[in-house]
Amino acid sequence: MFYHDKQLQYTVRVDTPSPVFAKMLQQAIGGVEGEIRVALQYLFQSFGARGPAKYRDMLMNTGTEELGHIQMLATAVAMNLEGSPAYLKDEMANADPLLAATLGGMEPRQFLSAGLSALAADANGVPFNGSHVYASGNIAADMYSNVAAEATGRVLACRLFDMTDDPGMKDMLRFLIARDTMHQQQWLAVIEELGGHPGTLPIPNSFDVSEELREVSYDFFATGIEGVEPPQGRWTSGPSLDGQGEFRVRINTPLGQEPQLAPPIPSGYAEVQQMSSETVIAPNTRS
Amino acid sequence: MFYHDKQLQYTVRVDTPSPVFAKMLQQAIGGVEGEIRVALQYLFQSFGARGPAKYRDMLMNTGTEELGHIQMLATAVAMNLEGSPAYLKDEMANADPLLAATLGGMEPRQFLSAGLSALAADANGVPFNGSHVYASGNIAADMYSNVAAEATGRVLACRLFDMTDDPGMKDMLRFLIARDTMHQQQWLAVIEELGGHPGTLPIPNSFDVSEELREVSYDFFATGIEGVEPPQGRWTSGPSLDGQGEFRVRINTPLGQEPQLAPPIPSGYAEVQQMSSETVIAPNTRS
Amino acid sequence: MFYHDKQLQYTVRVDTPSPVFAKMLQQAIGGVEGEIRVALQYLFQSFGARGPAKYRDMLMNTGTEELGHIQMLATAVAMNLEGSPAYLKDEMANADPLLAATLGGMEPRQFLSAGLSALAADANGVPFNGSHVYASGNIAADMYSNVAAEATGRVLACRLFDMTDDPGMKDMLRFLIARDTMHQQQWLAVIEELGGHPGTLPIPNSFDVSEELREVSYDFFATGIEGVEPPQGRWTSGPSLDGQGEFRVRINTPLGQEPQLAPPIPSGYAEVQQMSSETVIAPNTRS
Amino acid sequence: MFYHDKQLQYTVRVDTPSPVFAKMLQQAIGGVEGEIRVALQYLFQSFGARGPAKYRDMLMNTGTEELGHIQMLATAVAMNLEGSPAYLKDEMANADPLLAATLGGMEPRQFLSAGLSALAADANGVPFNGSHVYASGNIAADMYSNVAAEATGRVLACRLFDMTDDPGMKDMLRFLIARDTMHQQQWLAVIEELGGHPGTLPIPNSFDVSEELREVSYDFFATGIEGVEPPQGRWTSGPSLDGQGEFRVRINTPLGQEPQLAPPIPSGYAEVQQMSSETVIAPNTRS
Amino acid sequence: MFYHDKQLQYTVRVDTPSPVFAKMLQQAIGGVEGEIRVALQYLFQSFGARGPAKYRDMLMNTGTEELGHIQMLATAVAMNLEGSPAYLKDEMANADPLLAATLGGMEPRQFLSAGLSALAADANGVPFNGSHVYASGNIAADMYSNVAAEATGRVLACRLFDMTDDPGMKDMLRFLIARDTMHQQQWLAVIEELGGHPGTLPIPNSFDVSEELREVSYDFFATGIEGVEPPQGRWTSGPSLDGQGEFRVRINTPLGQEPQLAPPIPSGYAEVQQMSSETVIAPNTRS
Amino acid sequence: MFYHDKQLQYTVRVDTPSPVFAKMLQQAIGGVEGEIRVALQYLFQSFGARGPAKYRDMLMNTGTEELGHIQMLATAVAMNLEGSPAYLKDEMANADPLLAATLGGMEPRQFLSAGLSALAADANGVPFNGSHVYASGNIAADMYSNVAAEATGRVLACRLFDMTDDPGMKDMLRFLIARDTMHQQQWLAVIEELGGHPGTLPIPNSFDVSEELREVSYDFFATGIEGVEPPQGRWTSGPSLDGQGEFRVRINTPLGQEPQLAPPIPSGYAEVQQMSSETVIAPNTRS
Repeated sequence: MFYHDKQLQYTVRVDTPSPVFAKMLQQAIGGVEGEIRVALQYLFQSFGARGPAKYRDMLMNTGTEELGHIQMLATAVAMNLEGSPAYLKDEMANADPLLAATLGGMEPRQFLSAGLSALAADANGVPFNGSHVYASGNIAADMYSNVAAEATGRVLACRLFDMTDDPGMKDMLRFLIARDTMHQQQWLAVIEELGGHPGTLPIPNSFDVSEELREVSYDFFATGIEGVEPPQGRWTSGPSLDGQGEFRVRINTPLGQEPQLAPPIPSGYAEVQQMSSETVIAPNTRS
Repeated sequence: MFYHDKQLQYTVRVDTPSPVFAKMLQQAIGGVEGEIRVALQYLFQSFGARGPAKYRDMLMNTGTEELGHIQMLATAVAMNLEGSPAYLKDEMANADPLLAATLGGMEPRQFLSAGLSALAADANGVPFNGSHVYASGNIAADMYSNVAAEATGRVLACRLFDMTDDPGMKDMLRFLIARDTMHQQQWLAVIEELGGHPGTLPIPNSFDVSEELREVSYDFFATGIEGVEPPQGRWTSGPSLDGQGEFRVRINTPLGQEPQLAPPIPSGYAEVQQMSSETVIAPNTRS
Repeated sequence: MFYHDKQLQYTVRVDTPSPVFAKMLQQAIGGVEGEIRVALQYLFQSFGARGPAKYRDMLMNTGTEELGHIQMLATAVAMNLEGSPAYLKDEMANADPLLAATLGGMEPRQFLSAGLSALAADANGVPFNGSHVYASGNIAADMYSNVAAEATGRVLACRLFDMTDDPGMKDMLRFLIARDTMHQQQWLAVIEELGGHPGTLPIPNSFDVSEELREVSYDFFATGIEGVEPPQGRWTSGPSLDGQGEFRVRINTPLGQEPQLAPPIPSGYAEVQQMSSETVIAPNTRS
Repeated sequence: MFYHDKQLQYTVRVDTPSPVFAKMLQQAIGGVEGEIRVALQYLFQSFGARGPAKYRDMLMNTGTEELGHIQMLATAVAMNLEGSPAYLKDEMANADPLLAATLGGMEPRQFLSAGLSALAADANGVPFNGSHVYASGNIAADMYSNVAAEATGRVLACRLFDMTDDPGMKDMLRFLIARDTMHQQQWLAVIEELGGHPGTLPIPNSFDVSEELREVSYDFFATGIEGVEPPQGRWTSGPSLDGQGEFRVRINTPLGQEPQLAPPIPSGYAEVQQMSSETVIAPNTRS
Repeated sequence: MFYHDKQLQYTVRVDTPSPVFAKMLQQAIGGVEGEIRVALQYLFQSFGARGPAKYRDMLMNTGTEELGHIQMLATAVAMNLEGSPAYLKDEMANADPLLAATLGGMEPRQFLSAGLSALAADANGVPFNGSHVYASGNIAADMYSNVAAEATGRVLACRLFDMTDDPGMKDMLRFLIARDTMHQQQWLAVIEELGGHPGTLPIPNSFDVSEELREVSYDFFATGIEGVEPPQGRWTSGPSLDGQGEFRVRINTPLGQEPQLAPPIPSGYAEVQQMSSETVIAPNTRS
Repeated sequence: MFYHDKQLQYTVRVDTPSPVFAKMLQQAIGGVEGEIRVALQYLFQSFGARGPAKYRDMLMNTGTEELGHIQMLATAVAMNLEGSPAYLKDEMANADPLLAATLGGMEPRQFLSAGLSALAADANGVPFNGSHVYASGNIAADMYSNVAAEATGRVLACRLFDMTDDPGMKDMLRFLIARDTMHQQQWLAVIEELGGHPGTLPIPNSFDVSEELREVSYDFFATGIEGVEPPQGRWTSGPSLDGQGEFRVRINTPLGQEPQLAPPIPSGYAEVQQMSSETVIAPNTRS
């Protein structure tokens, strides 16, 4: 269960409010790289954790930390909107609010639906979607999902850092970027603890690899037509990362048949011309 | 640009059609771990690739390969439905189709909307959603997104493998599982080529780390209340994976202020009782 | 069943077309507080109404009224776009349409997808989503869902009213705001008719309250950590609104156990290191 | 910011695991009436709260409480799945897993995507959608949104209570149902504190009602065609709930014009036959 | 504006209630081929109609008709659920409701969220999505969108007709199928009135075709690799349907360049190894 | 299965980069009229094709062609962004990036999430949704779905053509518009090959029309109230397009009953006042 404190995890200060930046910050709240996603992702991974309890507990700690980041960013959005054209309009009676809103590039629903506050949505106003909460039940798969989230999250935070000159906002982002630095390595540290590539690959490592078609397990499939050279790299030669095979290049060719489905069944109500696979005759009488 | 062949990349054979398995296979087509996602993800990463052309080309090869996997799975769905209750009903006139459909556990839209074929949706019929196409412009972030996709994808394929006793379906899955084995390591091989953890972390490695709040960059934040021990692991002590810091535990406490927003503005149309931050007085007259 | 008239329910007049306002109006059409939502919500509540027929009939009346509001707003959008940069461009051959579109802050799909007409979407272009059509089968729950819809709807309409100086648009909004005034009270009048708080609470009032854990039925749970004072108000002391209890404050503490799930099953394909809940050993051989 | 405890807010115990009930419980986690929604809704209302701090604080307390409910329900899902056909299959080697899964009526993604754990989705597997996080900035509108959420939430919990005979699950639901009893009245207590209907209606009460078209502010619009009697009730006569008007019935008739839009502009690329509003002539030559 | 009648457009009678059929009927209400979609689609096309008023009026008539179809189907759902396991359970006290629900194959939310009524969702419980409301502003494009909706809609209704043996449901579907017959031809009659293929193609016919790359306007692009024969048909030879060209086959080959994007910009925060397009060197020092 | 070439299907050249146009182009990539939709739609129709193989093959060819169009448009987006304010900012150190972004009207996620590349989303950033992939199993229904897609697609491309003065972009659009010209007629050519209207209507033509309620199969239902004239046109008189009936006008009146559902069942937890359909009595005592 959860508790709260009245104070923010880290100072949120806005020196020069910017409604445009308030819109951009939404991506870090409700975007696919955002804090609602990572908070729920780590918490759901924790809630469903099977196996060593230490991972369940670790995920609970960091999921709880991320809840505080949602709060920081939502507070930052509200503060940035306190200088928005809609906000200022009340003091500038003769301003044209529509033009102002346009020039301001505001997210309209931050005003229309939320009264100058944050939404559970991304920078385009697309609502947060729970399908991004990855919790597969396989710890290595989950750790890589988490690394992906924190890597795209830190890229986003750095881009936001560069978009603003506001000292308060830069200070907040310095904190969040540093936390992403930690979290990337925290999840990778679990991979290391599990034995690194040899200990975890292929994921899941509990599937008996002799069941898979081993002759294509380490082949780079080149799909270019004749004359297109396959790209060379670490993935085209040398030992595989799991230490169990050798990378090779295979020019891709069909190994399967030409697909041929059965004719449609009557109750599927295809056109009558589809009922035979051979010829097409326009029907001229139907009762 | 793209070309096609009439044959499948690998044989798709269904010995004993199962409409329930046809439903399960949808997860591998249109689910978050599915083939539409990885095909579009690798292709969009390729279309937007900046930097060394070899990565753009590699992504194009594998994205093109995945298109063939969508085709294989969609063919497998259609073949599994050729033995569905709805299908068989036409030959068993006295069967109760609704009971049959129920017992069969079919995905209703595979019949109602698609006439016994595959949908661009997951196992619950939730349509594929393009927000899962991650292509961040940062190659390390993208590689980890790809590893996450292939790791959850192989976990899914192994679970499907265990759910069926059909030799044809098992054979197809042996191929797909093997390809996932390769693809996981292919993306991690790029990380290795880029110098591994020291060469890529923190992602993005082009942000000047002296700009971030370094004092929290390697701290595990413990959010448990008093009496709750933080979990110990590779992430709580020892050198960080990027070789630039030392992991520590920090008991989480607020570093920020109690948030206090400005009063609502008139044009935001809060209730009048919200206009002051101090007291609440029920209005008794309004013009 | 339904009929139509050729005329609008209320005059829609645009004196000075504004493509920005056309975008804002979308929120009142396809937004979560919008008219498609309330029209379908009241109609679905009516279609599924069980119990006294008068409520079914009342809902049908108001749902039908709201259909006319969609029409009014869609007409208003189209009229506002008749002065859009895209529209005017045809008369100003040398204008830069892209710059114009930008400065105009238009919703791009109103032009690209709809040819200068309204969409079934909100102000950000997010399509209307049917999950907002609340019709629970419990009339008190539905009435409060309706009050919530009309309350947020009137707040939205007032905000829109303040954003425009167009006399025609203000006139249309005067009508819609007045209707929201009525509808809020119409739904609350049903609550009053059902006996007010004592007659309806807790919702559903058909559940035998002796089955619930009565010792926490009127407690305000304070989740602040030590040192954080719980907020005082009508909800922390005095008789409960249903007249059956007394409000109290309870400092929140765990009443349950530390969760411990069973180990993963083989066919779930967790990593092998998760199979035991005790220790983590990196596997070094796998067949 | 937030903290956590290792223990659950209330005991979660499953005596007889039921994968069907695990599916049903998803509605209480990620459904529109579910705990993710209320947790985020109350927290976002708190994060964006303007005006008296006591409401911000109250919302924070209850939002934090709801986070613990997500955890309880997710734990309940995982426990119910520990007796699922997929789970048991490993001990019953000769069972047909597909038939078992079918008869069990499982949510397939709880196994395929989550390894027998909960998802951030509803009972049909539709992912949680952030657009249900209502936080309008108007406290009365928000309170009614919260009542609606808790009313539909308690109706859901009562329906779930009736669907199970499991003593552990019934015990957990007794707790959750009691909390919903409290929360409904907690939000209504704020309305009472704000002065009840006279103090809050019409919402927003900060809009000058003389600006609205007062002649339709208390009229029930009857939309039935001739011969259809309007339903009578508290909403058709007597004083309005805000004490400012008198309810009446008005037979709905058009107060507006027949809409007539301008012809399409060239760059909108309508068909040429649409260019005139008068006649349709099939074009017979185009260059 | 709109009016209603108390009676249904056509009789809805359920002789033997079937909760499974209640689930299937949802596809005809909130599915992509369903009645909410066509009702809103025709109404939005009408609301945004520019050009001859007769088309605006025709669309209004049929959109209004479709509203009545939603009502019929929602009523049919509710009636089918009156014999559902959940419903019957109250009379069969010793039945196991969960098993019953499973065997019944019910849509869980029809009970959990709607109390045995219809939802604004499809047969999988996926909510109606407003992006399917096509109203392009080009009448020929819209007519074909309408034909597509009515064609898939009639296919769906025929499939539903075959799934039930209930005389009441079959009678209702006979009516709906007949209306789809009319509506398909109604929209195609507009195409005929506009001059058929020569009068409407290519859509939009208001674009000056000399502006398009005419040398590929009537070519079937064959994308098969060497050895794959292009399929022959009406589309590979003979006059084009607009009478302005001749169909041909073209073996597809690239007409464009190899794409090469500029290097990433610093503020985009790619990895440093992406900054040059030529070589990849693992960075070994970063400040 | 699929292959690729390194070169684009047609030249993509941007003379004057425009971030606003990059946003508009998204509609042609991930919008409902966009290339992801048609590529997947034709491929899924091909994957599930039953009946004559030539249609399966034709669909495969054109679906593969469309994959190349996604690539062209994604390349065009990236090139247009190379002159974006965010891009240029690195060269103009003293520019205000936020103002620049606003004036530029950029899609924020093209920078924030994609590093100046294309997304799998529409012009508002709404992600591509797989429910638009229509593949019904009925070839005539599918061909009309395809015509609708290509008609709205060509309308979109023409509107985009008019929005830009860039010679490179215009050249690319000339190619795409020409391909849409072909594709519209390609799908209609299949209808002609199937016998035109007499050969295909009503769709599906495999349903025995004597089963439908023939007396309403060719009637235009007029839903206007008294005094509203039904619109006259090809659809109100003359032979039906399938040659099997005669169009007529029918003034719409109810043919069905007033719906009356059964009372709510106890386990559905309606309010107690709903339990009887006759009267409403406020409960004053509940145990």
